[in-house]
Order: sequence, then structure tokens, then C-alpha cells
Amino acid sequence: MNPSILLSKRAQGLTSSAIREILKVTERPEVISFAGGLPSPATFPVERMREATLKVLADAPQAALQYGPTEGYTPLREWIAAHLTRKGAAVGPGQVLVVTGSQQGLDLLGKCLIDEGSKVLVETPSYLGALQSFSLFQPAFASMPSDGQGIDTDALTPELLAGGRFMYCLPNFQNPTGRRLPLQRRQALVEKAAAAGVPVVEDDPYGELSYDGETLPSLLSLNPQGGIYMGSFSKILAPGLRLGYVVAPEPLFAKLVQAKQAADLHTPSFSQRIVHETIKDGFLDAHVPTIRDLYGRQCQYMLDALERHFPAEAQWTRPEGGMFIWVTLPAGIDTGRLLAKAVEQNVAFVPGAPFFAGPPQANTLRLSFVTVPQEKIEAGIGKLGALVRAEIEALPKAA
Amino acid sequence: MNPSILLSKRAQGLTSSAIREILKVTERPEVISFAGGLPSPATFPVERMREATLKVLADAPQAALQYGPTEGYTPLREWIAAHLTRKGAAVGPGQVLVVTGSQQGLDLLGKCLIDEGSKVLVETPSYLGALQSFSLFQPAFASMPSDGQGIDTDALTPELLAGGRFMYCLPNFQNPTGRRLPLQRRQALVEKAAAAGVPVVEDDPYGELSYDGETLPSLLSLNPQGGIYMGSFSKILAPGLRLGYVVAPEPLFAKLVQAKQAADLHTPSFSQRIVHETIKDGFLDAHVPTIRDLYGRQCQYMLDALERHFPAEAQWTRPEGGMFIWVTLPAGIDTGRLLAKAVEQNVAFVPGAPFFAGPPQANTLRLSFVTVPQEKIEAGIGKLGALVRAEIEALPKAA
Repeated sequence: MNPSILLSKRAQGLTSSAIREILKVTERPEVISFAGGLPSPATFPVERMREATLKVLADAPQAALQYGPTEGYTPLREWIAAHLTRKGAAVGPGQVLVVTGSQQGLDLLGKCLIDEGSKVLVETPSYLGALQSFSLFQPAFASMPSDGQGIDTDALTPELLAGGRFMYCLPNFQNPTGRRLPLQRRQALVEKAAAAGVPVVEDDPYGELSYDGETLPSLLSLNPQGGIYMGSFSKILAPGLRLGYVVAPEPLFAKLVQAKQAADLHTPSFSQRIVHETIKDGFLDAHVPTIRDLYGRQCQYMLDALERHFPAEAQWTRPEGGMFIWVTLPAGIDTGRLLAKAVEQNVAFVPGAPFFAGPPQANTLRLSFVTVPQEKIEAGIGKLGALVRAEIEALPKAA
Repeated sequence: MNPSILLSKRAQGLTSSAIREILKVTERPEVISFAGGLPSPATFPVERMREATLKVLADAPQAALQYGPTEGYTPLREWIAAHLTRKGAAVGPGQVLVVTGSQQGLDLLGKCLIDEGSKVLVETPSYLGALQSFSLFQPAFASMPSDGQGIDTDALTPELLAGGRFMYCLPNFQNPTGRRLPLQRRQALVEKAAAAGVPVVEDDPYGELSYDGETLPSLLSLNPQGGIYMGSFSKILAPGLRLGYVVAPEPLFAKLVQAKQAADLHTPSFSQRIVHETIKDGFLDAHVPTIRDLYGRQCQYMLDALERHFPAEAQWTRPEGGMFIWVTLPAGIDTGRLLAKAVEQNVAFVPGAPFFAGPPQANTLRLSFVTVPQEKIEAGIGKLGALVRAEIEALPKAA
């Protein structure tokens, strides 16, 4: 403790999360945890990445271990641009900034787009990590009404959008809800945002994880002039390399590069070259379907367990991709208190409240299914279902 | 170009560097460049790191490729704490935050310590990358008078220090000057900072690179309660992994962790394990002296070339470690203009002006010697010396 260190106002505003403290106990092996946001390590292509690493260290060891350009490793930027172009958005390598995990993209966008009090439009609920990153720059969040399909585009009135510095959207299998925005809403969203002059930031870490392989057009492809797009290798390769990217138009792109230079000079050269070596010959075309299959089976298993064990009063999303199911319990049930009881029985999940920028819906929770063996899904959802029934029993009865 | 994207005030304040544009031409192979800040790739222990990488991928591939704790990989934090303790500062692993290059430490410290208008005390001149990082948070820089030995501690008056949010110091072989702060000044500095209640941020990427192996006590070891320390593996192992660390007392430490989580979740697990595997059995004890020897020889070669080719009116530092020599030319010579002429003759350096937070000394320049072959040092310093002589000739004569 050093009493003379005066923290900045933004640091004083950072609060440590009570939930994070509770969830620390979930590291005990006896806990069945649906709380994690981790991809399944069974999907990490270890052998392929070992070969790629050896190739990088054989072909260009000094370049791989040396400082590199802030924008990123050129062949990787070219791969990303070609990948996005193949998916319908005409992107050039010069618009691609490689970042140290797409979380860094959020920090850089916050730095370059948010002044104190700036209006930032977010989904209800939204990705917690984005709310944390943006909060450091002290915006005024405005919540966009959302339902089981995502943002309710009918509710995007000119008044709501007016003066928005940007709109932050996760159209594919959103964290925390697992929902996917339908095509018609995507079109309405980009039209309304363009009419209101609000740039759209599209965060897409889960877009490749559609269980049946069918994808919808990105917001970027529907709105190439006004789009900012964030992608990641964390969910299709491995997160421990921290590798993501941001696509942005000028003049924002140049500012993001300068902010990136001040933030960490550049993303590790070694990781960039390993990933490029791993994927450059089409590896992901065969690899990603294996992740989709696994996650689709795991999701279906949890959905079946929810049907078996949860009471009729509970509702949940039925994702077509991604890593999460979102459960809504009857009003009056506080999932923060429910978590304390669940942890006593060695089951864990993430309460929904922190995912809301506005008034929280305290009766919601997020379940992750991808890393939990099926017999533990059955056992854990069984225990959770019984706890939820008891909570409902204990609710004051309507007159 | 998207006219509807409104940039934050801090992003509008980012200006692209004219020097950076000029220096882009120095990538041409015919240019003899003393401008780079890169360590010599000849010092990268490629074979050792290949073995370490294979070991990590054999022993714990899934953990190395998975998300990890924000604070860092525990065995690496323990190694760092033991290393600093061996060097005289009692540091526990719980005070060590692993960061994605020590540049990220600057960003996190800026976030947690700087409000708009906060007084931040810096050396004259100081590390350009730190000025860039801190500037994003809109401080009011106050320059501490400095000379060839570093900060002039006699000039650290209570008035100058009053209200300083922190003091940013590079006591060992500073970038850009190569100077080292003498022991007596170190003691005076920590005493005066403590008396004024100003925390000391010590940035020490070059501390291990003393040519004769002799080191001076860190500011942290002289001031354990009030010290914030930043270290790096970039100059003693390889910069392409982007691996550094920050040591800080509570409550600042907890805030840095939260800011780090929002910035990139955590530093790549893979890189942290590779570095730990590389160094855990004392590898650096034998490796670092080979870097010291090389850099010491290169430095001496450039000092000799400066003696041979530069006019008596020029002055330069005689570093005892690190990667840089700082040259001061007669007043009236603008090294920005000199650079343009030098580049025409295929020689490059970095003009000194951008390293000043206050009024720049435009007659200064930085020379890097570690990556340039000795015959090119001779040729390049020869050309530069002739250009400097011509500049001096052209100066208006005193009456």
C-alpha cells in the first residue's frame, strides 16, 4: 500500500467483480462449471501448429523473433483480406490491422472513438469484455432494445441513434445469449445506422461456428463504407496466441495504427507467423467443421438436458452456433443469489446482470457447454434445475 | 474515407510523424541506418528457443494454447520476482504483472495514473514511445532538467515536483541518450520523490546491458515502498515475443490487472511458457554476457569512428551500456533538415526533437550501433561527419 499513489478517475471507476471472486472456486475439480468462456482444448490443432512452429523457426527465425510492423505481418493481413472478401466483403490488406486478441481491438476503438460522455449504442445484453473496455473511456451507454433474435431494429428510432459515436453489435451467436441476427434485421440495421450517421462496429468471434455451416452476410458486407469489423483466431484455432484483427476505413485506420503502436508496438511476430503458416494452405476449411460438429453436439445435449430438468417457467435460447445458451428465469429470481447456492452444490454459471449496460435483468444467466463432458452436463443441469424449481416455489404468489 | 466517423479528441491529437515517413526509405538495402532501435538478431538464441518451444508443445500443449490468467503465467512471475530479489529489490510474485511488451506497461500506467491535465514528470529528453503512450491520456508534461549523466537531481525542487502524478525515469542506458544515472543521483532522486509524494516509474529495458557487467542499484531497490518498475525480455532474449513486466504496489497493482484484462485479456500463454522454459535453468547467466560483449564492441567502434570523422564542435555521450549514442551539434543546426540530406547519401539516424516533451533541442540526434556491420559504421559515420562539417561551415558566423 502506497498512500501517495493517486489513481486516475478512470482507474477509480474500475470495480473488482464479486462474481469473479465467486467463480474462482469453480477451478476446484469437483465443480461442474458452465461459467467458462473457454473454447474446447480438444479442438486445438496441436500437431499442425507444432509443424508450423518448426517451419517458422527453420525458415525465418530471426524475423519471427524480431520487432515487426505495427500493422501486422503482411502475408497474414493478405490472408485475412482474402478470407473476408471470399465471404462477401471487399476488403484490402491495407485495411487490416492485426491485434493482440480482438479484445485489444475493443480497447483501440474505445481510445479512438470515445470521449467522456460519448453516446455508445450497445445490445441488451452485450459482451461484458466490451463494456469493460469501453467503460475506461467513460462513455454514456445507450441500450438498444433486443429480443431472442438480437437487436430489435424496429426500435432503432432516429432519437435513439442520434449522436451515437458508434453502435457495437455481435450479430453471430452473441456472447452471452448465443442469438443470431436475422438477415432482414441486418439489412434494416445498416440502413438505419447509415441514415443516422452512426458507424457500425461488428464483433464477430463466433461467426465461423454455425453448427450447420450456413452463414449470413456480415454487416460489413451489407455496409462496406460504414463498417468496422473485428475477427479472431481464438475460437477457430487457439486463444492462447492472442490473435485477432480489426478492419476499418480511413481515416480511422491510421489512428488505430498509431494507438496500437502506443499500446504494444505490434502483435507478437512469432504468433503471427505460426498462425499464417498453420492456415495458409486451407487448413481451416477442414478444421473448422470439426469444431462446429463438436459444439453442435454439445449444445444439443445441453438443450435436451434443459428440457428434461428445467421447469416450464424457465426460457432459454436455442443457438444455431457458438458457445453459449442464455436462460431467463421468472422475474423475481436473482441469479447472483442462485449462483451462491449452486456453488455450494458444486455447479457454476455466470449470472446475467453484468452483461447489461443499462438496468440489469437479474433473472438471467449464461451457460457454456463446449468444455463440459456430456455426463457432467446432465448432472449439473439436473442440480441447477432443482435449484431453479425451489426458487420458483419460494417466489411470492400472485394474488 | 467515411465522413461520419467522429474521432475522439485523444485520437485527433495523434499526429503522424514526418520522421517516420522519411525513415521508411531506410528500409532500402543501400541505406546505412543508425536509426533503428532493434536489438541485433545475431543475439537471438534460436536453437535454445526451438528446444523450449518443442518442450512446451510436448508437455502442456493445451494449456499453452488456451486462455490464461490476466496476471501472467505463475512460474514466469515467480522467476521474475526471484530475479529482481537477487538484484536487491525484495519483490514477491504477487506484485508482478506480465505484459505484452513493456510498451503495454506504459499504456496501462497511463490509463491508471493520468487524468486530463495531470502533471507527469519526464526526463529531458525521454523515451519517445512513453511520451506517445502517455499523451493519449492528455497529461501536462513537466520536463526535469537533465545532463549527460541523466536527471539533474539538484534541479528537482519542491515546486517542480509538487502535484506530480508520477516521475518517469530510465536510469540505465536511456533511450535515446545511452546515459546512466549515477548512484548518488539515484539516492537523491528517490529521496526527493518520496518527500514530494511523487511515485517513481522506473523503465529498465537496458539494465542488463552494462558492457562491463557492473550494475547500479535499481530505483526500486532504493525505494521499495514507492517504486513502480518495468522490465523486458526484448533486449536480452528477443523482442518478437512481446514480453515484459510491471512491478507495482497495491492498490495500483489491482487496477493495472483490471486495465490489462480490458486491454487484451492476458499476454499470450504460448510466449510466456516458451520464455520461462528458455530461461528457467539459468540460461541468461551465460547468454546475456555475449550480448554485452557484442554491443560493447559495436559501441566502441562507433565512438572511434565519431572521433575520426566528426568535427570538434560536436559532442556525444560515451555509453557504458545499451544500444544508443546521443550526439549534440552546435546550436543552429537542425537535425531534421540534416536527416533529409543524409538520406540522399543513403545514411539515416533519428533526429532528437521528438524525444523532448518540452522545447526540443533541434541540434541533437540518436545513433544506434548494434545491428550495423563495422565497415558500414565507418562509412556511414564518415559521410555524416562530412555533412555535419558542411552544416557548421554554413552557420552564420558570430560577429
